[in-house]
Amino acid sequence: MATVYYTASSVDGFIATPEHSLAWLLERDVDPRGPMGHDDFMAGVGALAMGAGTYRWLLTNGLGEDRSWPYEIPSWVLTHRTVEVVHPSITPTQAPVRDVHRQMVAAAGGRDVWVVGGGDVAGQFADAGLLDEVWVQYAPVTLGAGSPLLPRALELELLDVQRNRDFACVRYRVVDGA
Amino acid sequence: MATVYYTASSVDGFIATPEHSLAWLLERDVDPRGPMGHDDFMAGVGALAMGAGTYRWLLTNGLGEDRSWPYEIPSWVLTHRTVEVVHPSITPTQAPVRDVHRQMVAAAGGRDVWVVGGGDVAGQFADAGLLDEVWVQYAPVTLGAGSPLLPRALELELLDVQRNRDFACVRYRVVDGA
Repeated sequence: MATVYYTASSVDGFIATPEHSLAWLLERDVDPRGPMGHDDFMAGVGALAMGAGTYRWLLTNGLGEDRSWPYEIPSWVLTHRTVEVVHPSITPTQAPVRDVHRQMVAAAGGRDVWVVGGGDVAGQFADAGLLDEVWVQYAPVTLGAGSPLLPRALELELLDVQRNRDFACVRYRVVDGA
Repeated sequence: MATVYYTASSVDGFIATPEHSLAWLLERDVDPRGPMGHDDFMAGVGALAMGAGTYRWLLTNGLGEDRSWPYEIPSWVLTHRTVEVVHPSITPTQAPVRDVHRQMVAAAGGRDVWVVGGGDVAGQFADAGLLDEVWVQYAPVTLGAGSPLLPRALELELLDVQRNRDFACVRYRVVDGA
């Protein structure tokens, strides 16, 4: 069982534009059942966590036409503000990341824990020594500015490199914080 | 013949630390004759250009023990300041990038033109519509801050993805500036 930051990024290390847009990402061609694809990854995931910004983005832009929450697995939203809870699987929390992680692992039932984002949330897991892997799918674009992929100095070990249609996909083990 | 920005980067899109260190890069394992390796790339290059910062870094840190300039091919240093010329192949220039590029292409004799860096110099070539390809070798590290890989919004097309020992290597065609 691993705690994994699985995310898309621009080639230059941004996960959203300064205006919080993902238009540069969502128009791309990817096989969700291909190498490091979303479907296989999700099949191994038993719990997820995200920051308030990612959650807000999902509520505003990411729920699709039927406005339904896309995940059935237990989901934590790390936030210091009150957020709208749109599905019973969602738990907003102000608890320290170490406590949240303990709850996630228990809920995941032996499956992996997914750190959805943003970058600073992944960094908080890394700061606590709880981040095992980083998977990045690089979209074929540079943004030049935006939300940073992972604003920490971390030593990694390359586990895998694959192409999935428009995306260069890399998988790393977190060796330690620098 | 192509104009290529060929560079190493951290996973999160930095080509040097805030202190201009490349220690995170230089200690890695790479096969210079392996996929997208330096030797094969250099064999196809007939001229190169770099910014004043990259040149200063090379003079201070990158010349090896014998202090000799590592390139025989014609080299341009884009700078608005006076720089020390340590080899007859080096031409400092304040000319517009379009004029420098014309000289480089003529000097390269049908071979490729290498934009060494930094990121803003590559961006200047892209701004002028002169950048054909971007090759990035991602070292297994995040830096969290530093000199940006390519501070522009550019649409790319993924041409190749390879592993070379510690490095995930990607190659893109520049489609256009965004």
